[in-house]
Amino acid sequence: MSNQSGPLHFGPTYVRAIAPYQAGKPISEVAREFGLEEDAIVKLASNENPFGVPESAKAAMAKAAAELGRYPDANGFELKQALAKRYDVPMEWITLGNGSNDILEIAAHAFVEKGQAVVYSQYSFAVYALATQGIGARHIVVPASNYGHDLDAMLDAIDEDTRLVFIANPNNPTGTFVPGEQIEAFLKKVPANVVVVLDEAYNEFLNEEDQYESAAWVREYPNLLVSRTFSKAYGLAGLRVGFGLAQPALTDLMNRIRQPFNVNSLAQAAAIAALNDSEFLEKSARNNTAGYRQFVEAFEQMGLEYVPSHGNFVLVKMGKDLAAGARVNLALLKQGVIVRPVGNYGLPEWLRISIGLPQENAVLIAALQKALAENRAD
Amino acid sequence: MSNQSGPLHFGPTYVRAIAPYQAGKPISEVAREFGLEEDAIVKLASNENPFGVPESAKAAMAKAAAELGRYPDANGFELKQALAKRYDVPMEWITLGNGSNDILEIAAHAFVEKGQAVVYSQYSFAVYALATQGIGARHIVVPASNYGHDLDAMLDAIDEDTRLVFIANPNNPTGTFVPGEQIEAFLKKVPANVVVVLDEAYNEFLNEEDQYESAAWVREYPNLLVSRTFSKAYGLAGLRVGFGLAQPALTDLMNRIRQPFNVNSLAQAAAIAALNDSEFLEKSARNNTAGYRQFVEAFEQMGLEYVPSHGNFVLVKMGKDLAAGARVNLALLKQGVIVRPVGNYGLPEWLRISIGLPQENAVLIAALQKALAENRAD
Repeated sequence: MSNQSGPLHFGPTYVRAIAPYQAGKPISEVAREFGLEEDAIVKLASNENPFGVPESAKAAMAKAAAELGRYPDANGFELKQALAKRYDVPMEWITLGNGSNDILEIAAHAFVEKGQAVVYSQYSFAVYALATQGIGARHIVVPASNYGHDLDAMLDAIDEDTRLVFIANPNNPTGTFVPGEQIEAFLKKVPANVVVVLDEAYNEFLNEEDQYESAAWVREYPNLLVSRTFSKAYGLAGLRVGFGLAQPALTDLMNRIRQPFNVNSLAQAAAIAALNDSEFLEKSARNNTAGYRQFVEAFEQMGLEYVPSHGNFVLVKMGKDLAAGARVNLALLKQGVIVRPVGNYGLPEWLRISIGLPQENAVLIAALQKALAENRAD
Repeated sequence: MSNQSGPLHFGPTYVRAIAPYQAGKPISEVAREFGLEEDAIVKLASNENPFGVPESAKAAMAKAAAELGRYPDANGFELKQALAKRYDVPMEWITLGNGSNDILEIAAHAFVEKGQAVVYSQYSFAVYALATQGIGARHIVVPASNYGHDLDAMLDAIDEDTRLVFIANPNNPTGTFVPGEQIEAFLKKVPANVVVVLDEAYNEFLNEEDQYESAAWVREYPNLLVSRTFSKAYGLAGLRVGFGLAQPALTDLMNRIRQPFNVNSLAQAAAIAALNDSEFLEKSARNNTAGYRQFVEAFEQMGLEYVPSHGNFVLVKMGKDLAAGARVNLALLKQGVIVRPVGNYGLPEWLRISIGLPQENAVLIAALQKALAENRAD
C-alpha cells in the first residue's frame, strides 16, 4: 500500500506475457479495410462449414427462441442426454463448453497450477500455448515430425511436473493425423497422473478407414479427456458449443471450473438437432473430400508444396522467404479472399486455406494464381 | 512417473475444494421432478426479465442468423462501437464477456495469481468466491453490515497481498445498495495497485435518485473495472452477453485471458438492439417498481421480514430455524413455483424471490401463504 513510482502494472507476469490469439479476419472487417462489398468476399480462413447452419438446427433454434429471457440450463440436461446416447457414456461423463476452446481452457485451469508443466507439439493449435501461459504453467513444446505430432518424443518430454498433454488429431493448422493405434499406444504408456487431452475438433472429416473410437478409450483410461466441437463439421461456429468426454475423476473437476451458464440456450438446442442430422454431416464430408481434391490438384499444377490434410483445410507454402505468407495474404485480401496467415505458428512461409464450396475454392485458386504471378513479376 | 498407490487425484488442491455454483432449477427440471406441466410453473428464481427478449433483439437475431456457420467477430466491433458511444469511452476500454460471469472470472484470472488475496463481502454474489477459489487465491470475506457491503471494513481488510476487490451494487442476493458518493470515496482511498471490480448487474433497476455515473469514474481511476450484463433488465439471459469498462491498463490484460470467441454472434447482434431499446428498458423498470410494491405489501401483511431491495428480487425470511428456507422452498416447488434458496450464501432462513409479471407475483404470494399456513399446521 506504499506509493508506487513508475508506471503501475496489474496482473501476474505470466498474464502480461500473453500474446493474444489472432482470429481470422471477419468479412465485415475486410470489407471496411479494403473498401470491398461484403457479398463479393470469399472467406476460407477459419475452417468453418461452407454450408452454414443445418436447417434442422435452425428449426430447433426457432423453437428455443421464445425462452431466451431465461438463463440456459446450467446442467445442459437435454444436450448431455443426446450426447450420452450417441457416445454410449453416462451423462455425468460430459462437460459442455462455450466451443471446444472453453473445454481446453477449463482443462488447463482444472488440472494444472502455476509452475507445473504442459506438453504439446510444435505447430499444434494456438490455444494450447495460450491456456498454458494463462495459468502460469511451464510450456514443454515438442518439435514436430513432418509438421505433425511426434508421440514418442512427447512421451519422452513428460517430466515430473507435467500434469497435462494436448494432442490435436487431426492437427490444426497443419492437417496432420496420427493413426488410432499410435494414440492408444501412447495412452498405454503415459503416466496415470498426467491428463491427456485428445482434441478431435476435425474428427468428423476423417475418412472411414482412419476413424477410431475414442469414446471406448475414455471408458478405459481415467486420465483421458476427449474434446469435440460443433463449430466445424456441424456448422455451428457462431453459436459456440463443444464438449468433453471423460470419466468422473476429470469431469467433476472440470465442472467446478466451468462457468455455470457457459453454453447459451440456442447453442444447446441447435447442437441436439445437428447431432442427429446425419444427412448434413455426410453432405459436409462429401463436399470436403471433393474440395480437398480440387485444391491439391491446383496446388500441384501451380507447383506449390502442401501438407497432406485430414481436416477441412490445407496448409500450403507460398515461397521460401519469411515474408511469403504475409505477402500473398495481402494480395488475396485485396482480391476479397480471406485465408489464414500462420506466422504466429512459426510458419511464415505458409497459408492455411479452408475448404469451401466448389465455386469458393475456384475463386481462391484464381486469386492465388494472380497473386503469385504478380509476386513473380515484382 | 512412479506407480501411485491409493486413489489417483487430478488437479490442484484448490480446484478440488471448489463447491460448484448452484443454479436456479430450470422449469423443465422442476416439471420432471415434481410431475408438473411446464406451462403451469412460475419461475421467480433467477432474476430474469419477465418480459423475456425484447422484440427489437429478436429482429436483430433473425438478421444475424444467416451467418451462424461463421465464427463470431472475436473483436466484437459493432457491439463495442455501440457501447463506446453509449458510455462515452474508447472502444479499446471495453471487454466483452459470455455474460458478466465471464467478466468476473476473466478479472480474477487476469489480475490475481495463486496465493494473492481477493476481498469481497459476506452475502455477496457467489461467483466472487468461485472465481477466487478457482485460481487458488486467498479469500478475505468482510462481514456484511445490514446484509450489505461495509466499505470501510472492506478498505481496512485490504492487505499487501490483495490484488482485487469485488463490489456488487446493487448486491445479489440481498438487494442492498451503496450510494454513489460512498463508492467514490472508497475508490479515492483504495491502493492504486488493487483492482476494484464494480459489478453493476442490476444497475438498470435503480431509481433515478440513486443513479450515478460509474463510466466517469472509469475515466478517473485506472484500477476500476465496471461490469455490466444484458441478462437482467435487457432480457437476454439465455444468450449470454456482458461487458467490462476499464482503462487499457486493465482491458489489455483481460483481453489476453478472454477466449477469443467467448460471445456468440446472436448475442452480439441482440445486445446492440437491446441497448438501443429504451422503451423496453423503461417498461421493465416500471414493472419492477410495481412488482416490488406488490411483494413488500404482501410480505408486510404476512409479517415476513425482508431486506429492502434495489434489484429485481427480494430477500425474504421464512422463519427462525435453519431449515425454514429449504422447507418453504419445497412447499413452493410442489405448487409449481420456483424461487431461490440461499443456504449456500449462509442465509438458510431466507428465500430470494425474483420480481415477475403482476400475475406471476400473485401466484407466488398465494403459494407462499399456503406454504406458510401448512408450515404452521405441522
